[in-house]
Amino acid sequence: MFAASADNIVTGSKLLMELLGADSSARAEIAERMRAAEHAGDDATHAIFHQLNSSFITPFDREDIYNLASSLDDIMDFMEEAVDLVVLYNVEELPKGVEQQIEVLARAAELTAEAMPHLRTMDNLTEYWIEVNRLENQADQIHRKLLAQLFNGKYDAIEVLKLKQIVDVLEEAADAFEHVANTVETIAVKES
Amino acid sequence: MFAASADNIVTGSKLLMELLGADSSARAEIAERMRAAEHAGDDATHAIFHQLNSSFITPFDREDIYNLASSLDDIMDFMEEAVDLVVLYNVEELPKGVEQQIEVLARAAELTAEAMPHLRTMDNLTEYWIEVNRLENQADQIHRKLLAQLFNGKYDAIEVLKLKQIVDVLEEAADAFEHVANTVETIAVKES
Amino acid sequence: MFAASADNIVTGSKLLMELLGADSSARAEIAERMRAAEHAGDDATHAIFHQLNSSFITPFDREDIYNLASSLDDIMDFMEEAVDLVVLYNVEELPKGVEQQIEVLARAAELTAEAMPHLRTMDNLTEYWIEVNRLENQADQIHRKLLAQLFNGKYDAIEVLKLKQIVDVLEEAADAFEHVANTVETIAVKES
Repeated sequence: MFAASADNIVTGSKLLMELLGADSSARAEIAERMRAAEHAGDDATHAIFHQLNSSFITPFDREDIYNLASSLDDIMDFMEEAVDLVVLYNVEELPKGVEQQIEVLARAAELTAEAMPHLRTMDNLTEYWIEVNRLENQADQIHRKLLAQLFNGKYDAIEVLKLKQIVDVLEEAADAFEHVANTVETIAVKES
Repeated sequence: MFAASADNIVTGSKLLMELLGADSSARAEIAERMRAAEHAGDDATHAIFHQLNSSFITPFDREDIYNLASSLDDIMDFMEEAVDLVVLYNVEELPKGVEQQIEVLARAAELTAEAMPHLRTMDNLTEYWIEVNRLENQADQIHRKLLAQLFNGKYDAIEVLKLKQIVDVLEEAADAFEHVANTVETIAVKES
Repeated sequence: MFAASADNIVTGSKLLMELLGADSSARAEIAERMRAAEHAGDDATHAIFHQLNSSFITPFDREDIYNLASSLDDIMDFMEEAVDLVVLYNVEELPKGVEQQIEVLARAAELTAEAMPHLRTMDNLTEYWIEVNRLENQADQIHRKLLAQLFNGKYDAIEVLKLKQIVDVLEEAADAFEHVANTVETIAVKES
């Protein structure tokens, strides 16, 4: 079930990529598909919680399962919110750095989807979480550069407000990938 | 104790309603009563935590009780923050949609207060959480319309900043009602 | 290990103090030392989590240890973020109230560092958490005054955006000190 949730995130990150070059009618259609992906994610999360609450025995600690499912759900929510804001605020052009933010998210999504099936055997996970932590640091630096750029006087205040909300929510998505990786590490340490 | 906490939230939502038509001296007085309600809520939450920490046996899982009490407390905090910001920022006129946000919160407050006594027997709770989830979706759409309206060029940037903070905190209150409903669902699934 | 984490926070609060009078080259150097302190904090947190995950028996409830370590880590993160934003946004002059915010944080840091060694014996902790809760209320009032000041028309919208983010993150640090104190209270009630 975690694998389904992570595959869904890969779909979401691809939609973010598509958004970059899209005109306004294509954007509305991407937002629609993103909403569908987010609903599929909600259903997956709900199924995990329901099974968790009605099972006596669970493969890992309940709390870790809960944290993992919640963080995967958060990633999807943040990605959907980003698309939503671009459409809602009718943003003409996104700053250059946003493309870099989305590339990092797409890479993290792939790594996460590859890692989930390894939760069964707990092997080959070390590289995954080291790499996701590295990606989060990279995302953080891109985000900081974007903030400095937004405030350098080129944008008016209303535009800063709009764009800041979008780059902040993409940064939150990167943080949520790190939470997933940290929870996987927690599970692996307990199992070892 | 949860019922006391939820009744307090009904009081808070009524104060939010009163705020809408109030002039500046009436607002200060409403803020005062809101602060009193929020303190009463804090005391209720503290009493729940104290009893939880000093009891060996609890009616539901500790964590669920903790989550339920925290989310009820969050609702009150967000509602108080909204009143506070209106007074602090000396907001002349709230956008039309804010009234709709507050009406949804008032309805969610009533439903929550009606549901709390059913935690004893666990019956008649399904309708409650379906309806609160529906209300949260409605709140979300109202919130999104408000954001689009704030950024449509009619307001100056400082006004956008003030009003956005207020409509965001009301949206957080709606989310917190959903957290309460989700926790109640979790408890009900475990008990069934 | 909690004591090491708290001592680190004292270092952080002293760096915040230094920041107030610093010119731009001194600021960059302070940000460097802050980053080092934050990394040291991360290592301490990671060590606590690792030991927690690999131990069968723990001195307190796992969840309380986890909450305590996380909240201590949050304080450091918020303090580092504040320094970072001042440098990143190249803020000319901080409003007067920021000095008061930082003084409250420095006092809370000292109290927290003094309290941590008492977790062994659980004595003399009552005064600590009453005082930290009082400081958080004081921080809250300073923060509210700062917000009113930012929106009183003296600052332009871009400057409001920058300064608001800084005073908000300092307020989050004050809140995180309160979370630490509340977790200590939770532990003490269970042990009594």
